[in-house]
Amino acid sequence: MMNDIGRAPAQTLDETRSLVLPALHKAVDRLDDLERLTTSYHLGWVDAGGNPVSGAGGKAVRPALAVLGARAVGAEPAVAVPGAVAVELVHNFSLVHDDIMDRDRTRRHRPTVWSVWDEATAILTGDAMLSLAHEVLLEEGGLQAAAASWHLARCTRALINGQVLDMTFEQRAEVSLHECRRMAQGKTAALIATSTVIGAVLAGGDADALDALTTYGLRIGLAFQLVDDLLGVWGDPQVTGKSNFSDLQAKKKTLPVCWALGQDGARAARLRAWFTDGPTDPAALARAAGLLEEAGARDWAEGEARRLVASAQAALRGAALTPSATADLHAMADFIAGRKA
Amino acid sequence: MMNDIGRAPAQTLDETRSLVLPALHKAVDRLDDLERLTTSYHLGWVDAGGNPVSGAGGKAVRPALAVLGARAVGAEPAVAVPGAVAVELVHNFSLVHDDIMDRDRTRRHRPTVWSVWDEATAILTGDAMLSLAHEVLLEEGGLQAAAASWHLARCTRALINGQVLDMTFEQRAEVSLHECRRMAQGKTAALIATSTVIGAVLAGGDADALDALTTYGLRIGLAFQLVDDLLGVWGDPQVTGKSNFSDLQAKKKTLPVCWALGQDGARAARLRAWFTDGPTDPAALARAAGLLEEAGARDWAEGEARRLVASAQAALRGAALTPSATADLHAMADFIAGRKA
Repeated sequence: MMNDIGRAPAQTLDETRSLVLPALHKAVDRLDDLERLTTSYHLGWVDAGGNPVSGAGGKAVRPALAVLGARAVGAEPAVAVPGAVAVELVHNFSLVHDDIMDRDRTRRHRPTVWSVWDEATAILTGDAMLSLAHEVLLEEGGLQAAAASWHLARCTRALINGQVLDMTFEQRAEVSLHECRRMAQGKTAALIATSTVIGAVLAGGDADALDALTTYGLRIGLAFQLVDDLLGVWGDPQVTGKSNFSDLQAKKKTLPVCWALGQDGARAARLRAWFTDGPTDPAALARAAGLLEEAGARDWAEGEARRLVASAQAALRGAALTPSATADLHAMADFIAGRKA
Repeated sequence: MMNDIGRAPAQTLDETRSLVLPALHKAVDRLDDLERLTTSYHLGWVDAGGNPVSGAGGKAVRPALAVLGARAVGAEPAVAVPGAVAVELVHNFSLVHDDIMDRDRTRRHRPTVWSVWDEATAILTGDAMLSLAHEVLLEEGGLQAAAASWHLARCTRALINGQVLDMTFEQRAEVSLHECRRMAQGKTAALIATSTVIGAVLAGGDADALDALTTYGLRIGLAFQLVDDLLGVWGDPQVTGKSNFSDLQAKKKTLPVCWALGQDGARAARLRAWFTDGPTDPAALARAAGLLEEAGARDWAEGEARRLVASAQAALRGAALTPSATADLHAMADFIAGRKA
């Protein structure tokens, strides 16, 4: 088993946080006034009054991938740090803006920025993080900073398009699995792929290594979204920190939903009817979740996530990557598929 | 008179549009789906249904400054184009987001993006333009692209802070002229300074030239904001394309307002009282405008703008810049101070 020579993902994530958090703090310290407070609040470092709090931050999966990517091409973890900071900032930019658009009041068990302050403040907070990502990367990223920053800008375009499609799909009764996959590739997989490759880009990795890391990242990114979709319906809100059934309430066309809507039979027909004009009271949402499960959407999504993880791991085999980092990437893929939050 | 050897600013602006617009179209064509439509709509190229329209675009002052900056250090205008596209995209990102925050329904005589579509779409449209600016600059900007992109990111941080301060000031009865100047430096002058220097950065201009162009840009940037503030109260809505008195309605602490609030005497006291809790019906807004004028705010702002323009022009004299571009920058400064929209 490759896992035997890889460190546990929890250890990888802990080590990444120790390495990257100081640099992330230093980056956020560049911000002034209100935007520094709201960014620090969103990142889980302070309460809304600016008093330090602990333990509310994200898992830092994307920074960990950036560090692993650098290690995979033989570089020191430190080389990846500006990239790790940048992808974490872009990820959080998208969360803060998405929360406004989706009217989500809770994120990581805490009130969202727009619900504590207002929409204008949340817009500016996201804007500040997006721009800061490029500023830090270009200033600290060394000789390959421009290439890394270009990767980041390209994937941000995909990320934005994913959110556009996601919103557009809410208005439609049916969305094909192909369209939904394109949405998820933009909304989730693009940034995860860029996270995986950005450290290797900063380290000057060769094209074969960058290709392998990108393919791995796109596949675990899609798996990550499938797990997100599963947790959004069948996860424990106490663990996920998100309100239950909110995706169903918004009639979001997630991957398992699109798969189920495309099936034959009575259950798929009932689901199509519900997504067209069904009620969204708690009982109706629970019935819709039951129908999804009976239609096989849960099994399909779980199998698809496992298949993508295996295929991501396979993509690493062809390239000449450092074995220990490859093992850690292997374990990280399993971790992403098995996570509960 | 330097104006005699400089081309008329109108000609500079026309020539810039011919040079930069095709590249701006090519950049926007990278966007997909809805975000391409809304960006093209905002830029005045199509109506909300996607049908081409003409003549509704902006003046392209910032792209013109980028081209003049490149020419000032002896480069071909084409060298500035990726920078010109990038600053125009960042400018329009900020307009689209500011319109949401300020609830402005009209911009350049047309309904704003958020009022035609919705806030979520306008947030995504702005996000797309900000990220696209870096993507294009890094891809097309040549050897100095990273430096140019870094300048852009730094000034975007200042731009965002300016908007944060602007909004914060609306909640306060009084704001010092010093604070207000800091706000205007962020909100307006930073991007104008970056526009002026970005073409020269891309051309590999020396430090003295970049310093002179930055100083010039910061000064005409503040003058630009003063003229904006003047037009917001005493401009002709038919010409400006903005609703009259909207700044007063929001109790915005513009530069002339802050100057007036800091004066002694009965008029300043009445103004302070009105800004604290005065009514905002049309008659009250007209009275407030009258009071501002009687307090000398209009004269002060006009004088200050003239002084800044002269001081911007003086900043160019010390550096070894191409005479014809210097003359055009000289004329552009006069144009900015004298504009009616």
